[in-house]
Amino acid sequence: MKIGLLGTGVVGNTIGSKLIELGHKVKMGSRTADNEKAVQWASSNGDDASNGTFADAAEFGEIIFNCTAGVGSLDALRLAGAGHLDGKVLIDVSNPLDTSKGMPPTLAVCNDDSVGEQIQKAFPAAKVVKTLNTMWCGLMVNPRMLQHDHTVFLSGNDAEAKTQVKEILSSFGWKENEMLDLGDITTARGPEMYLPLWLRTWMATQNGAFNIHIVT
Amino acid sequence: MKIGLLGTGVVGNTIGSKLIELGHKVKMGSRTADNEKAVQWASSNGDDASNGTFADAAEFGEIIFNCTAGVGSLDALRLAGAGHLDGKVLIDVSNPLDTSKGMPPTLAVCNDDSVGEQIQKAFPAAKVVKTLNTMWCGLMVNPRMLQHDHTVFLSGNDAEAKTQVKEILSSFGWKENEMLDLGDITTARGPEMYLPLWLRTWMATQNGAFNIHIVT
Repeated sequence: MKIGLLGTGVVGNTIGSKLIELGHKVKMGSRTADNEKAVQWASSNGDDASNGTFADAAEFGEIIFNCTAGVGSLDALRLAGAGHLDGKVLIDVSNPLDTSKGMPPTLAVCNDDSVGEQIQKAFPAAKVVKTLNTMWCGLMVNPRMLQHDHTVFLSGNDAEAKTQVKEILSSFGWKENEMLDLGDITTARGPEMYLPLWLRTWMATQNGAFNIHIVT
Repeated sequence: MKIGLLGTGVVGNTIGSKLIELGHKVKMGSRTADNEKAVQWASSNGDDASNGTFADAAEFGEIIFNCTAGVGSLDALRLAGAGHLDGKVLIDVSNPLDTSKGMPPTLAVCNDDSVGEQIQKAFPAAKVVKTLNTMWCGLMVNPRMLQHDHTVFLSGNDAEAKTQVKEILSSFGWKENEMLDLGDITTARGPEMYLPLWLRTWMATQNGAFNIHIVT
């Protein structure tokens, strides 16, 4: 499958390389066509990896991954262009971390809104699915790194889109019983507002390679 | 031990009855001395159970449990009186759920503040420990209801107070390895902001008898 990936940080790099490993063609997009990190990622991931602008990547992808920082996601997606997003599954893994007021970061949006919802509202014809934002990116694409079951959440308005995303998660190694569909995109407030607990747990344990498991 | 318990709701009832079962003397406090729910709780929990005003309960307790609704906790504690809280361990299990804007509730305070912090700031001589707010009250006092390990968080400025709270948690059935000390009281933002995810998980699964486990 052809996948457009927005963002050149560690999350984008990790997901992009995993998608390449799984046999997909991936174009990493950034604000400029010659972003150094995107060029380096593309040149070190073989013939199926390429890079370009946000618009190039979004046009290329049958499915889009938003791996930009949550505070910049709407801007990045506007540069990608609504016409390149319409009708496509848009997987949003971002978190609206605001480091401008010191560490640990606060959230730039929360409580009565979320980045997931803002993206869906700004691009109503895209099929936004919020997922994977609740963990370190190493675990996103290699959940079996942990010996016990753990949980990944999904939020989105389109049931078929969530089924497609579950197939991708499954290819990453996620088990069906580990995927929890929370409901429509407004439920993204839950996973996004979990981040402050994630951050404090990481700070207390000095180990980012953890995830939560819903135990019943 | 003599324990003052503020709040007459299902959380206060559940914790109060567990403390009685464990051999403590518990006074349940409410806004009025003759609150019907408090009178009923006291009359059905034997000679070690009593009730009175918030001030009566706080004066009585060597340790205080705040089981009031988070949006009313500061008011309740002001009625309890700083003089009855000073120097005591104040266990805050509240959540600032705001149902005034519809369901599911938003949080009345979050992101750059928390109820735990507000209480500590308003009553600087009390030793506030935030804990247990991340789950249904049935699990708070009976964690072994779940077959697998799961996690309870603690936040507070006073290390000795957290040790005392851990002893109480241990008497409830919590294992040492299940208790995660997040740090000072500002870390209460994490467990409080987890509530929206708790609520959506509950709504999606229709089962409130769950908790999260930090899996590494």
